[in-house]
Amino acid sequence: MASRELNFWGWGYADRFPGRAKRLALAGQLGLALGFRAGMPRRPPRLDDVELRPPRATVPPALEAFSSADKRDRVVHTYGRSYRDIVRGFGGDFGPAPDFVCRPRDEDDVAAVLDWAGERDVAVVPFGGGTSVVGGVETDGEGRRGVVSLDLKGLDRVLEIDPVSRAARIQAGATGPAIESQLAAEGLTLRHFPQSFEFSTLGGWIATRAGGHFATVYTHIDDLVESIRSISPAGVLESRRLPASGAGPSPDRLMLGSEGTLGVITEAWMRVLPRPRYRSRASVLFDDFERAACAVRAVAQSGLHPSNCRLLDRREALLNRVVSDGSSVLILGFEAADLSVRDRLAQALRLAEELGGRCPDGALHREPGDRSRRDDAAGAWRQAFFDGPYLQSSLVSLGVLADPFETACTWDRFPALHQAVIRNVRVAMKEACGAGFLSCRFTHVYPDGPAPYYTFLAPARRGGELEQWAEIKRAASETLLEHGATITHHHAVGRTHRPWYERQAPAPFLDVLRAAKRTLDPEGILNPGVLIL
Amino acid sequence: MASRELNFWGWGYADRFPGRAKRLALAGQLGLALGFRAGMPRRPPRLDDVELRPPRATVPPALEAFSSADKRDRVVHTYGRSYRDIVRGFGGDFGPAPDFVCRPRDEDDVAAVLDWAGERDVAVVPFGGGTSVVGGVETDGEGRRGVVSLDLKGLDRVLEIDPVSRAARIQAGATGPAIESQLAAEGLTLRHFPQSFEFSTLGGWIATRAGGHFATVYTHIDDLVESIRSISPAGVLESRRLPASGAGPSPDRLMLGSEGTLGVITEAWMRVLPRPRYRSRASVLFDDFERAACAVRAVAQSGLHPSNCRLLDRREALLNRVVSDGSSVLILGFEAADLSVRDRLAQALRLAEELGGRCPDGALHREPGDRSRRDDAAGAWRQAFFDGPYLQSSLVSLGVLADPFETACTWDRFPALHQAVIRNVRVAMKEACGAGFLSCRFTHVYPDGPAPYYTFLAPARRGGELEQWAEIKRAASETLLEHGATITHHHAVGRTHRPWYERQAPAPFLDVLRAAKRTLDPEGILNPGVLIL
Repeated sequence: MASRELNFWGWGYADRFPGRAKRLALAGQLGLALGFRAGMPRRPPRLDDVELRPPRATVPPALEAFSSADKRDRVVHTYGRSYRDIVRGFGGDFGPAPDFVCRPRDEDDVAAVLDWAGERDVAVVPFGGGTSVVGGVETDGEGRRGVVSLDLKGLDRVLEIDPVSRAARIQAGATGPAIESQLAAEGLTLRHFPQSFEFSTLGGWIATRAGGHFATVYTHIDDLVESIRSISPAGVLESRRLPASGAGPSPDRLMLGSEGTLGVITEAWMRVLPRPRYRSRASVLFDDFERAACAVRAVAQSGLHPSNCRLLDRREALLNRVVSDGSSVLILGFEAADLSVRDRLAQALRLAEELGGRCPDGALHREPGDRSRRDDAAGAWRQAFFDGPYLQSSLVSLGVLADPFETACTWDRFPALHQAVIRNVRVAMKEACGAGFLSCRFTHVYPDGPAPYYTFLAPARRGGELEQWAEIKRAASETLLEHGATITHHHAVGRTHRPWYERQAPAPFLDVLRAAKRTLDPEGILNPGVLIL
Repeated sequence: MASRELNFWGWGYADRFPGRAKRLALAGQLGLALGFRAGMPRRPPRLDDVELRPPRATVPPALEAFSSADKRDRVVHTYGRSYRDIVRGFGGDFGPAPDFVCRPRDEDDVAAVLDWAGERDVAVVPFGGGTSVVGGVETDGEGRRGVVSLDLKGLDRVLEIDPVSRAARIQAGATGPAIESQLAAEGLTLRHFPQSFEFSTLGGWIATRAGGHFATVYTHIDDLVESIRSISPAGVLESRRLPASGAGPSPDRLMLGSEGTLGVITEAWMRVLPRPRYRSRASVLFDDFERAACAVRAVAQSGLHPSNCRLLDRREALLNRVVSDGSSVLILGFEAADLSVRDRLAQALRLAEELGGRCPDGALHREPGDRSRRDDAAGAWRQAFFDGPYLQSSLVSLGVLADPFETACTWDRFPALHQAVIRNVRVAMKEACGAGFLSCRFTHVYPDGPAPYYTFLAPARRGGELEQWAEIKRAASETLLEHGATITHHHAVGRTHRPWYERQAPAPFLDVLRAAKRTLDPEGILNPGVLIL
């Protein structure tokens, strides 16, 4: 994996960025679906043409063995992978590049970086996959005398497995595939598949409260954490490995969502599972999205706890080539290692059908010894899901503004929120771009509410993309705040969402977070400007 | 309810404390089960004989309308209901009685108490049901100039119900029965039944991370909280009502487990449920406790998520009159509002039977229209569960030392922990008391570990009970710490567990808690001495 080159300005691997002819074809296909025309494919930037400012800080001898001020390293660690990041990267603008990049080989290296940075007043940005979509790894240092990027991907091992308790001690820099391949050797899996799975890391998931595979019950990485070990300038903070505890406020819940501001997560004990051998799934079609949402609510409140319960509106289904007949699609799935889940799927399907759903393709069961393979909506969806970020990079080159935003709210507020989002974001797209496309899906659902995820696409004006984007993003974020939703369900706060987070979070709690920061990071060197100021 | 008098020194209602003849009979019965003899019943204390020190602080005019320095009020608010508390109360010792008791009628009254106490340097102890078993409501003020008990039971209403999202806004002083009767009018239930249910309050449950009805998934009150509103000297801290969020560390998780040190919880939005109409349950007997624990692990790891999955060892089963043939008993139950849970019980029973369990009485199903009623082990257990605290008060009068301790650990550590607990606590009972009885049950179970709950009973030496108890408690607590378990799964830290909590919690996290305390309670008036110093 180390030998495969990453795209320095866009998503993923460089060799997955499609050539001009393919992008031209994509533009044509999309025009039909989106109702507006994409632009002509533009040529991606070359690394040679990128100019970086001279570093303010140089690699000191103490960190030399694992640090680099190489241009490519600095460029790749400048941004996350939001629309804003990709637009700036595509334009060759890497203004906030870090001064150098450290790649610690162990915790001593991490501590050495923090010690040096504390003495020199240099900001340290913990960096995992660099897939933040909220400006989580980009900083000019907020007044510090320099910025180093602390890339943890060298800490990528599963250190220990406890098969009895079903838990594994995993280093924070391990990516999704690195975790899964090491666990697979023992027949286990973490089953945490965020869209960034291929590149993002355990530490990043914990720091940002990532959302994963399970649509109900164990939705956030929070639920899979047994204990966390982190290093801050004030020392090591390691919680006890416990299935549950009632001893004071949870120390893990302080680090979950801390976004690199309170410490560098170095490893965690995570709850793992045997790989599922029984899987039952079905796709349920609805003429009407509001009816479909009611059916999802019924399933979410039933206590059946499906592992998959994802609702796509008709535009989302169309865009992702799941179905194209104008239906909304509910993808329902159950899975288990040791027992059949047919009955639970049947019970969930009955609830969905009572509320107007139809299941033309029936249920699909995969059980031990069963070798049948059949394509279905869930399979099409999964492929489109992991390809989504690659698509976004292509769209940038075609002059299409493309970005998602996501939230969660209680069920009673969802209809008004949804109507307002549709209305306000369409108006904002119209005003900023003259046209636009907006789709919605539910990524996770709870007994008391859904987590809706919206994607907007609009024709961008070359050179004005960031202003256009900011206008639409502002309309979306204001609507979420006004309607009692959260500014983020699983994308984190970063720098992008901070203005709305500051209004959403209780003011005395923000004071507590600042006090926690002063306690653990008295010099304020850790990822300054993220989450809190 | 207000008219029924509480026992001022022991558990519950005064009229539930049995007379001499009944206690004499109890002593005889217990002698057979315990292997040692109880003492002769002693006469309980009379309130008239209790002497209190003069109050250090008197009720100021601003608080007069809702405060009382009445003797009975001060006595009833002196202690929780641990063994230590009952022994001291039975002896007529109410040394740490608060100076007076405030019963706020609304949040303004709460704020007025905090304002006055902050100015006068008086400690404020939030008080719900007063059922703490860890010294959670008892203080001499830790250097403050007085102590007031802030009894929140006047704030006892369900303020709002959202039937669509299945949530209710409930005042913090509402007791279990008050909550359930108000929700029942709408066909809903919170289904949180700690052993203290009859007296304890929502605010107390949240402040102490109480454990409830569900043995899996939604075990702690934490899981039922949608948002919390609290008042601290620094102001109101109210989180947004959300089914889930990824926006920074959870503010609710700061208040959950804060034990009255960071603010006074005044209300919360809680996740509620329609009352279950489908229930399936069964009791599974095992010859061997270790095999039974393996079966529980298989069920906990199956993904079936039973609502009841409680394992009693043979002594626990005997003591609670569930079965008396020397078997360990696993009580398994599933429940749902709208769909049958027969299949899930059948799947769980198959897992248990594969590991040596037998189910002589078969499964019991209760479904709409089914009026059959049958007694079974689960019913016997439930009665014994809620009678347990009353029994403890009787035992104190019979000179029997009786106290539980509880914990949680990962499955891999459980066998060694359990052996060490049995060995060390038996030795401690033998040394301190000359004899003793120790039983174990699992109150809650997780995919990665159980929450074992131990009860010890031993002959007490009159006047030496507290030293004997301290010796046994120390042996138990040291064993938990040494074997990687938590000092508490759901009884909280209070003052009793603080020495072990300070060793269990990561030191930098304790510093963060202290910083949070300085931020929200700069004068340090809120429940000083609990959790942290």
